[in-house]
Amino acid sequence: MEGPGLIQVYTGGGKGKTTASLGLALRAAGHGYKTIMIQFMKGKIDYGELKAQKLLEPYLKIVQAGGPHFIKRGSPSKQDIKMANEGVEEAKRAFKEGNYNIVILDELNVAIDFGLITMDQAIELIQQKPQHVELIITGRYAKQEIIDRADLVTEMKEIKHYYQKGIQARDGIEK
Amino acid sequence: MEGPGLIQVYTGGGKGKTTASLGLALRAAGHGYKTIMIQFMKGKIDYGELKAQKLLEPYLKIVQAGGPHFIKRGSPSKQDIKMANEGVEEAKRAFKEGNYNIVILDELNVAIDFGLITMDQAIELIQQKPQHVELIITGRYAKQEIIDRADLVTEMKEIKHYYQKGIQARDGIEK
Repeated sequence: MEGPGLIQVYTGGGKGKTTASLGLALRAAGHGYKTIMIQFMKGKIDYGELKAQKLLEPYLKIVQAGGPHFIKRGSPSKQDIKMANEGVEEAKRAFKEGNYNIVILDELNVAIDFGLITMDQAIELIQQKPQHVELIITGRYAKQEIIDRADLVTEMKEIKHYYQKGIQARDGIEK
Repeated sequence: MEGPGLIQVYTGGGKGKTTASLGLALRAAGHGYKTIMIQFMKGKIDYGELKAQKLLEPYLKIVQAGGPHFIKRGSPSKQDIKMANEGVEEAKRAFKEGNYNIVILDELNVAIDFGLITMDQAIELIQQKPQHVELIITGRYAKQEIIDRADLVTEMKEIKHYYQKGIQARDGIEK
């Protein structure tokens, strides 16, 4: 990849944060670059992106660092914390082994906000990013400490949403 | 695809509009759905997404409806208008023939704003969307007439950008 890898943050309440990072992985795959996406707080195995990863092999690897259940904000279980920590370790390994050009920490902002990962852990992880690796952090509630360390921050803002019309998340589009 | 296809708009000055629609195509491909992306105002043949389309064959087709040159806002050439109109016709064909689950009109908002496509043309096109097709419209400067017809509108808002640091768009990441 040309030049140093940067730190990008996609945050806000609107749609497109995880989706934009998947699009980034797809475009990068077109150039022959490899991406690992570590999904915090997600353990549902039939997400479209998990099937899509097979189509993009060997350019996209997705690792889920969370269970399928609902996590209560502020009072995570030991098991939830353990799974999130495994995600952090996976990211550190990716940084150290250098097999990936792009590392996506999907929903990291929410994992921090929910108390699964401490800010100290997150900062330590960000500091371990090798110069050439592009780091993408997604999730609403991005904290100032994360924004301060990012080169690019985009807020996805919901202007109009069809959930207001009572339509649920659909396979192949939202999940 | 489950339920009726909706109309999604990604607008605003921040990053991630085209990229989110590519991610949507990738996720949909994981479910076996086919996407056509018609790129208005883009004719550069080495964009990462054009290479990525080969990886996702036969689930993603990208058609460019624009030249590689810079278009001046408000005074487009006949050739620019002709190419944009070909993009409109391509979209109508996709609606009519029904080979695609998802139709992405990339940068349509800008093509309207720049005067390449009239609002009447755009509205006529949107009205031809078959019920089952998901329509994605991207580009900054989304007009109220477009927003009114959308089920979901997300604004990508730039909070912090590294262009301010003097770093240019990079192959495999931004293009």
